[in-house]
Amino acid sequence: MSGNTIGTLFAVTSFGESHGPAIGCVVDGCPPGLSISEADIQAELDRRKPGTSRHVTQRREPDTVEILSGVFAGRSTGAPIALLIRNQDQRSKDYGNLAETFRPGHADYVYTQKYGFRDHRGGGRSSARETAVRVAAGAIARKWLAERYGVRIRGWMSQLGPIEIPFVAIAEIDGNPFFAPNAAIVPQLEDYMDLLRKSGDSVGAKITVTATGVPPGWGEPVYGRLDAEIAYAMMGINAVKGVEIGAGFASVSQKGSEHGDEMTPQGFLGNHAGGVLGGISSGQDLVVHLAIKPTSSIRLPRRSVTLDGQPAVVATHGRHDPCVGIRATPIAEAMLALVLIDQALRHRAQCADVVCATPVIPAHPLG
Amino acid sequence: MSGNTIGTLFAVTSFGESHGPAIGCVVDGCPPGLSISEADIQAELDRRKPGTSRHVTQRREPDTVEILSGVFAGRSTGAPIALLIRNQDQRSKDYGNLAETFRPGHADYVYTQKYGFRDHRGGGRSSARETAVRVAAGAIARKWLAERYGVRIRGWMSQLGPIEIPFVAIAEIDGNPFFAPNAAIVPQLEDYMDLLRKSGDSVGAKITVTATGVPPGWGEPVYGRLDAEIAYAMMGINAVKGVEIGAGFASVSQKGSEHGDEMTPQGFLGNHAGGVLGGISSGQDLVVHLAIKPTSSIRLPRRSVTLDGQPAVVATHGRHDPCVGIRATPIAEAMLALVLIDQALRHRAQCADVVCATPVIPAHPLG
Amino acid sequence: MSGNTIGTLFAVTSFGESHGPAIGCVVDGCPPGLSISEADIQAELDRRKPGTSRHVTQRREPDTVEILSGVFAGRSTGAPIALLIRNQDQRSKDYGNLAETFRPGHADYVYTQKYGFRDHRGGGRSSARETAVRVAAGAIARKWLAERYGVRIRGWMSQLGPIEIPFVAIAEIDGNPFFAPNAAIVPQLEDYMDLLRKSGDSVGAKITVTATGVPPGWGEPVYGRLDAEIAYAMMGINAVKGVEIGAGFASVSQKGSEHGDEMTPQGFLGNHAGGVLGGISSGQDLVVHLAIKPTSSIRLPRRSVTLDGQPAVVATHGRHDPCVGIRATPIAEAMLALVLIDQALRHRAQCADVVCATPVIPAHPLG
Amino acid sequence: MSGNTIGTLFAVTSFGESHGPAIGCVVDGCPPGLSISEADIQAELDRRKPGTSRHVTQRREPDTVEILSGVFAGRSTGAPIALLIRNQDQRSKDYGNLAETFRPGHADYVYTQKYGFRDHRGGGRSSARETAVRVAAGAIARKWLAERYGVRIRGWMSQLGPIEIPFVAIAEIDGNPFFAPNAAIVPQLEDYMDLLRKSGDSVGAKITVTATGVPPGWGEPVYGRLDAEIAYAMMGINAVKGVEIGAGFASVSQKGSEHGDEMTPQGFLGNHAGGVLGGISSGQDLVVHLAIKPTSSIRLPRRSVTLDGQPAVVATHGRHDPCVGIRATPIAEAMLALVLIDQALRHRAQCADVVCATPVIPAHPLG
Repeated sequence: MSGNTIGTLFAVTSFGESHGPAIGCVVDGCPPGLSISEADIQAELDRRKPGTSRHVTQRREPDTVEILSGVFAGRSTGAPIALLIRNQDQRSKDYGNLAETFRPGHADYVYTQKYGFRDHRGGGRSSARETAVRVAAGAIARKWLAERYGVRIRGWMSQLGPIEIPFVAIAEIDGNPFFAPNAAIVPQLEDYMDLLRKSGDSVGAKITVTATGVPPGWGEPVYGRLDAEIAYAMMGINAVKGVEIGAGFASVSQKGSEHGDEMTPQGFLGNHAGGVLGGISSGQDLVVHLAIKPTSSIRLPRRSVTLDGQPAVVATHGRHDPCVGIRATPIAEAMLALVLIDQALRHRAQCADVVCATPVIPAHPLG
Repeated sequence: MSGNTIGTLFAVTSFGESHGPAIGCVVDGCPPGLSISEADIQAELDRRKPGTSRHVTQRREPDTVEILSGVFAGRSTGAPIALLIRNQDQRSKDYGNLAETFRPGHADYVYTQKYGFRDHRGGGRSSARETAVRVAAGAIARKWLAERYGVRIRGWMSQLGPIEIPFVAIAEIDGNPFFAPNAAIVPQLEDYMDLLRKSGDSVGAKITVTATGVPPGWGEPVYGRLDAEIAYAMMGINAVKGVEIGAGFASVSQKGSEHGDEMTPQGFLGNHAGGVLGGISSGQDLVVHLAIKPTSSIRLPRRSVTLDGQPAVVATHGRHDPCVGIRATPIAEAMLALVLIDQALRHRAQCADVVCATPVIPAHPLG
Repeated sequence: MSGNTIGTLFAVTSFGESHGPAIGCVVDGCPPGLSISEADIQAELDRRKPGTSRHVTQRREPDTVEILSGVFAGRSTGAPIALLIRNQDQRSKDYGNLAETFRPGHADYVYTQKYGFRDHRGGGRSSARETAVRVAAGAIARKWLAERYGVRIRGWMSQLGPIEIPFVAIAEIDGNPFFAPNAAIVPQLEDYMDLLRKSGDSVGAKITVTATGVPPGWGEPVYGRLDAEIAYAMMGINAVKGVEIGAGFASVSQKGSEHGDEMTPQGFLGNHAGGVLGGISSGQDLVVHLAIKPTSSIRLPRRSVTLDGQPAVVATHGRHDPCVGIRATPIAEAMLALVLIDQALRHRAQCADVVCATPVIPAHPLG
Repeated sequence: MSGNTIGTLFAVTSFGESHGPAIGCVVDGCPPGLSISEADIQAELDRRKPGTSRHVTQRREPDTVEILSGVFAGRSTGAPIALLIRNQDQRSKDYGNLAETFRPGHADYVYTQKYGFRDHRGGGRSSARETAVRVAAGAIARKWLAERYGVRIRGWMSQLGPIEIPFVAIAEIDGNPFFAPNAAIVPQLEDYMDLLRKSGDSVGAKITVTATGVPPGWGEPVYGRLDAEIAYAMMGINAVKGVEIGAGFASVSQKGSEHGDEMTPQGFLGNHAGGVLGGISSGQDLVVHLAIKPTSSIRLPRRSVTLDGQPAVVATHGRHDPCVGIRATPIAEAMLALVLIDQALRHRAQCADVVCATPVIPAHPLG
């Protein structure tokens, strides 16, 4: 598969650099008849947009999406849907001094080794700007999943640096720029971020993303497993260094008598599995956690090398996120949507005629 | 991609159920001219084999591999290499009473929901027996990677249930059935396992797998990233619930000034990145950690349901691993090999003509 | 996609050389619940088998197929179905003198250029023996297409060398070794072949293959078009040099007023399109023609070169088909089945929810 | 694979409808370092453009291409290259009366059956307008093939309706709007077309396309064969009903002693194979022929049905090609380029280390 396409039956091919004319994607395989508008997609993009609080990058991008194809009379036709987002607020001069050096922790060095040279402006293709495209494509996927199956995808920040964020309520997520499901803790998060910004440093975060309403049966063992596809999609988000499903790394020290989710006719008695068993959805809530590393672009000086291997010191100025995790929630949600729609289509390709006599075991409530 | 194939240019298609006539795979895309023998592959399989210690399942399988195609005069021809392993020690009667119920934590329920029915014997297609195939295919990949690039892949157990296993030396790994890189701690692990076995319960484990000698430049941003492919391959191993690269979930609370690996002409000054930056290998050691959940098949009775949704109690007898993590190391190594060879071939497809003037920054020593 | 896999959702991965231990394939993506037995597959293989008349190669292969996985209690489980056919009647000594030279018109030279060396015995991987595998996989596909959609696939020889074979009736196809739909012309064909065999030369043939009962809507424009996939599958059969759909090359000199198939509520008024419009099935009969070149292995001496580029003369003895087209019909039918099942699954992946108000226009009778 | 992507390592994903805002594509996998400019691509597009003679459609489209990504400082970066062509001269009112009926021979009916409804304007996604995108992507491929391997791709019209066009010289191809390699016959072709246009009917054509300089070894047996991929790409061009390689359908009546191309150290003695043996390039010229059907849009009234299955009569007015074959040559060349670059990259992925001791046999001159 080409490296810039994700999905097989709902395939999203992405393009665009941070400081090029535009970013965008082609979504191929959308079922026909889905009502789609630029407004639907714009709503999701606006959740991700830079410059929405003092805690994130101050680059001003309207991120206005244009639908170029695949929609007629307000509905998807089955033809590929191309989405275009023009770049506007590139400040390439901010990057001028970086043409000759590699920023530690970024992809500059590896892109040069791989391709022989790189577009140094704004991180070029490696920039997190590309994630806007995923959110746009994800908007289409989410809509179909909700309408066709009643699937709801929700994510939130569960940890900011050292600060664990106890889950209070989904309703609180959209009330703060952190996507924290806990209004009470927000002042503490803001104080932390203000100090961080002054220090010129950065910190990581942990994101949790869930999906409810996923029917049992999605996933293609033994390699196209649902959990494997989720891990692929999430680890593929810039700055992600770890992915867990359900109990994740806590499973290591758990006993089988504790970890295994028992079943009764009234429902599952737990969800350590996080909604996936044997690589297939169980009908329980999907629960995924991502570890996001601290931003590599910091104002503090860092040792590095020049293009020809000489020592250098790099301090990144310009407009950067001190914690990329703050804006990661919509991206993680979008990626989960892209995985789920592809899995849904794959499942019905092979199993549309299956009739299962076993009743569906109700999910354990999300806790 | 079909769900039973992994890889694009070095594509492995797997088949076989736990209690069917045979398991096996077809390896398509192996570069020609690689010397390959059944002995090469058998050596890797023997590391994984059941019945090699009292701590693992007592199913006796010789796991003898036969090469059916793709090798002539001792060398790969470029044609697909088919590997066959006949099943011998199936004890289907052990599973007779499970035809009508679902074992909690296993794939029984989800397979039935997906396909309408299932081969209940030994877990059918969902059985961990299939992992023997991955180890077989991985043997070919490892050989090529070692000969062509000097890549060495090594894995070990870094935690058994609650017991953290400090790394002492690679040389100690093969001296105990746990693949623990620490001979001194082995008695403690054995005592723990003896108690566990008596209790009828199971526990999880954490596996670390590394690769040295990987040149910079492997990985296909933005979706076919090396870390994404690794996560896909590892999360796709039965019983894995979490994958980390480098610092993994520790990144969450790290500062950028700590996490970012500085570069000097003499080498990288750290490897929190775990060998991957921007989705591309950096030339540093690849470092991956897996969280393996506790075995679902335990002797303790567990609540479940029957095929038609009635309450039931399931206690699994027969021959099972109280800790599947104990035999996971060779599988994780094999999966890393499969990912790396596919990435190596993809890289040279696109970038064989690239000349990079920037010298390669030496890796930070593995620590 | 790996070169030895065909199909995306019903993916067949083939392996095996002419003189290796075995040939076989893995069929991944078969819908569950299809009743499948070795007898079903054997029936199709027997139609293709060598040694069934004096007009074809005298190699004696029972071509006995063994199902290694993916079938339980007589039904497909949804897991990959591996099929194995052991080679028995290899006469490698027949090929001993060919190790050092290239047979003109065969793949010997190009395999050596591509891979650096080749398995010279019996043509190795390039041998038409591999087509037995396609017939085996095709048997599964045909069964599902017939049961699920009522699709019937039939092929026949429409020309043997210079002798055009007028179509008389489908019922006559199985009554002669040529798969000729015309019993009366068979003596003429036999006389021609007897003379040809004595001469030591070979000749080509034209095969027609059709499918009835294909509903409208299969095909994935603009590249995954049904006609493109058919062309791909057919041109991929050994010795095929041309593929036509419907009127094929006769379209070149036709007027639009003649070629375009008009529609009335009672049905189409013609089928120059051969069942495909705009890359999608129209509901009309699929009609495909293949041009098969004369066998390259002939007893007449032919100029060639040795492995190190010296002049040589090659005359091929041993057991060869003087007209490979004679046994091609079951292979062409199998390939059409493989294409159609993959297209059927793709269509329902994307369009399972489509409701079309327009009635289906009946097909024009096959003429 | 998604239906709108062609190629695996040089993957082109196409989008856009005839009367939508734009058409375009994403080219993923272009080797880095290739110098690319909009002028390079525009030159190829201008060869295909509508309105360039009275013999083709009079729709006026500047077909101006914009590069949105993947090129920096005039060279490909290895990132995906997105190409955009805005539609300008849509005359949707020309199609107003066609919303309720199906044009016979077009995809209208099948798109409605497949997707439930269709964008009726200008043929929507099924329009030949999409082929501009293929020419644009093909321009990049051609450049790389020429620079890296010295491959030259040339096509021409070899038959217009009933008029066979004898090949005279490549130099004559660009001197007439037919891409005829024969200046002397052009007046006869023009007279024929003038009469045809007056009659309101249409006719088919045969196109020949060749590639010289292709080294031996490209192609991925047994399914990813070079000839199969070529057939796939060519049959996938709108209006193509047949594809031949080399002697094509003439092979049917040829003897092996005639068809088989003998080899001497000085070169091949013939090229009936058309440059492909056993699915792999032989180093000889690739020779491909396409049969193009007569345009379905003609002014003569044709019987058809309405959306709800009632009888109707359709006469197509507006701006159409009386012979789509006239503009097909650049499209066929582009498709051959796309196949060849993908095959080149695949070959070097698997076989970059192959050393072949056998010298390359020189090609037989193109005749």
